[in-house]
Amino acid sequence: MRKLYHHWLCPFSRKIRLCLYEKKLDFSLVFEPLWEMRPEFLRLNPENKTPVLIDLNGTTIVSNYGATEYIEETYPELPLFPESPAARAEVRRLLSWFDEKMATEVTLPLVHEKTIKRYMEGSRGPDSAALRNAKQAIHHHLDYMAWLIDRRRWLSGEVFSIVDLTAAAHLSSLDYLGDVPWENHEIVRDWYACLKSRPSFRALLSDRLPGIPPAPHYSQLDF
Amino acid sequence: MRKLYHHWLCPFSRKIRLCLYEKKLDFSLVFEPLWEMRPEFLRLNPENKTPVLIDLNGTTIVSNYGATEYIEETYPELPLFPESPAARAEVRRLLSWFDEKMATEVTLPLVHEKTIKRYMEGSRGPDSAALRNAKQAIHHHLDYMAWLIDRRRWLSGEVFSIVDLTAAAHLSSLDYLGDVPWENHEIVRDWYACLKSRPSFRALLSDRLPGIPPAPHYSQLDF
Repeated sequence: MRKLYHHWLCPFSRKIRLCLYEKKLDFSLVFEPLWEMRPEFLRLNPENKTPVLIDLNGTTIVSNYGATEYIEETYPELPLFPESPAARAEVRRLLSWFDEKMATEVTLPLVHEKTIKRYMEGSRGPDSAALRNAKQAIHHHLDYMAWLIDRRRWLSGEVFSIVDLTAAAHLSSLDYLGDVPWENHEIVRDWYACLKSRPSFRALLSDRLPGIPPAPHYSQLDF
Repeated sequence: MRKLYHHWLCPFSRKIRLCLYEKKLDFSLVFEPLWEMRPEFLRLNPENKTPVLIDLNGTTIVSNYGATEYIEETYPELPLFPESPAARAEVRRLLSWFDEKMATEVTLPLVHEKTIKRYMEGSRGPDSAALRNAKQAIHHHLDYMAWLIDRRRWLSGEVFSIVDLTAAAHLSSLDYLGDVPWENHEIVRDWYACLKSRPSFRALLSDRLPGIPPAPHYSQLDF
């Protein structure tokens, strides 16, 4: 069985889970308590980050970037990337946008301040300036998503792609924490409702972090 | 002619320049003054970042990630990625290491504080804490590179790859600024001397930033 080392609200782990489900590839989840710096995990990934995927033949795939490309290259059936070079370039531009820009400005600060910090020894409470900045920045990202959806059927073009899964993975982590201001962003809410009802999303919606319950609407398909 | 929008010490632009040279693909450089937020450039990349590549047929490729994968997919001759899935995964793990971890901890803070800030209106001088942290962190990265080179012929394995070009692109930006402590890192110095003498490196070594001369040894092949 494949193994995916993950962390519950890590948006990159969630994205890789969605990709594996969409491609109907079996795997088991292994929760990695990153703050423990486990030597066994550091041997797999000296950067001490999730996700890490162990494939059937034992190949170890480290990093969001590595896993994203590996899954598509190794399991090309049920493709999550389009075919033409221009469309693939647009997909990767947007993967950069969500996995680097949105991750740095919104997802990682909110997940870190509200969840990871609780487990770290000697850490203080959430940094209110970091929370405030992230909660402001999310509007910019939701507006950009609405702009894209308004002009295309899906985020990266006319065809559903890994970009939709990636953006939805980020929003799902934020939605668990109740941090997506849906009331002002209806276009994105409708798109997300559509993503949420895909079978690949089911397992994500049943996730529960010990001690941190999800926002009440988190797993409701109709909000 | 292909066009590459770049910034002189942007490590990602340098990496893409090296890839294009290694693959013998002609291109012209367009310097992008990012602090001007030019509407024409924002239409190409709303994230206002280099590199942006315009290919012969007009395809626009945005972001380091997008350009890295596009060049290899579209021009597979003179490959910069190995063939096996496991070796490709190792290449991408290390690209993540250098382009995300080393970029965030070392290259981007030093380049930003020492060069970009000069051009930004109303900005204060370099932040000394940011400089100090980056100058400490570089030792960790040079040690990791030495550990890899000690066990393999090149950074990602027995075959020269895009990882060597990427790590060298970062070091070349830092070396321009005189910020690589070579005296304590001989293994990496020997590896870098080897990279520096490749024909693809020549153009990088003749770069000169207006008002900021390079460190005296920057373009010397034997240090």
